[in-house]
Amino acid sequence: MKKYAVIVAGGSGSRMGAAVPKQFLLLKDKPVLWYTLETFLAAYEDMEVVLVVPAEHVEAAKGVVDATRAPERVRLAVGGNTRFDSVRKGLEMIGEESVVFVQDGVRCLTSGALVRRCYEQAVRLGSAIPVVSSKDSVRLVKGDGSIVVDRSLVKLVQTPQTFLSSILLPSYRVEYREEFTDEATVVEASGHAVHLVEGEVNNIKITTPLDMLVAERLLS
Amino acid sequence: MKKYAVIVAGGSGSRMGAAVPKQFLLLKDKPVLWYTLETFLAAYEDMEVVLVVPAEHVEAAKGVVDATRAPERVRLAVGGNTRFDSVRKGLEMIGEESVVFVQDGVRCLTSGALVRRCYEQAVRLGSAIPVVSSKDSVRLVKGDGSIVVDRSLVKLVQTPQTFLSSILLPSYRVEYREEFTDEATVVEASGHAVHLVEGEVNNIKITTPLDMLVAERLLS
Repeated sequence: MKKYAVIVAGGSGSRMGAAVPKQFLLLKDKPVLWYTLETFLAAYEDMEVVLVVPAEHVEAAKGVVDATRAPERVRLAVGGNTRFDSVRKGLEMIGEESVVFVQDGVRCLTSGALVRRCYEQAVRLGSAIPVVSSKDSVRLVKGDGSIVVDRSLVKLVQTPQTFLSSILLPSYRVEYREEFTDEATVVEASGHAVHLVEGEVNNIKITTPLDMLVAERLLS
Repeated sequence: MKKYAVIVAGGSGSRMGAAVPKQFLLLKDKPVLWYTLETFLAAYEDMEVVLVVPAEHVEAAKGVVDATRAPERVRLAVGGNTRFDSVRKGLEMIGEESVVFVQDGVRCLTSGALVRRCYEQAVRLGSAIPVVSSKDSVRLVKGDGSIVVDRSLVKLVQTPQTFLSSILLPSYRVEYREEFTDEATVVEASGHAVHLVEGEVNNIKITTPLDMLVAERLLS
């Protein structure tokens, strides 16, 4: 089935304390975003990418795309004010009867194996949301206190959140709601169950300087 | 108030794929456990440490203790079959009217500032359980499916779990139960509320080779 990756790179980098948004920070001389693009372009020969960036980053993003293995398979879209809006903008550029991967631009350590695992499950079940278990104990805040929860039941959600276009596209034909914190919540709101798939411990999101150090080591 | 740290170093290292248990793996020429010991010994001049290890690691543990700044403030105890048993063995060696820190031996990046924050809150409220928020979205498995939970309400639990001895010691005078996954759950089972305190993103537990890389970078 045809494959599209909608890669959302809208961060402002404020949490890094850096002037450069984190998707453009360099890891071994390449921007974080370059690794993310490469992973998806390499995973499947017929993968097409829609890269969604804020208007002010279009030029920088073009530079990153041009350095990838297949710039001709990447199109740019200008994002909106929220993650939901940005994904919706990206979805306007994809075709029907496909599998769609929605990926954080700053999740640059996703493996090709995970991309393919998500694809296969999405074809079979309609969706694939990669998750890993917490290795720490987990508590839920309740009122003034907190309760412990069985950590084997707590799943930390990663990307690519992957769906059949026949499920994802209609789900996004709604108004934005506050509970839409990721793509899975949008799809659920339209009445579809979402299916989890085993993610990867190393598939981290770059949000702090520590994450940059980790990513640098993992890429070495 | 008098301070005791019960440092539990009972892991077998199987998750690291290494023959050496993770608490003895070297970070910049020092064992992981050495850093943990140093943090607690340095945090307060009157801190005493009870280091709980399996019988087969007593000799190795002695070597680590001797390399610290204050071996005379560290005593060894032989651990039990479960975390609960090991902590209980350690608690047999501490005095009344004190604050007790229970620490994972492989959590070697805990800062002195966090130790002091836990101390101050435990004196004031009776307990201090360091937690951080998840930066990933979180889902809870329910039956065949899963539900999303507000990630601001999900707290990942760290150590040192810190208590007044007047709360912790009586709480451990019970039989082991399966729901005793950490010290907080034991204290709660005896009818005490536990109080959370802000932990540290860098206060990671060394369980995978990736964690070793991170720790090495953070110590550089």
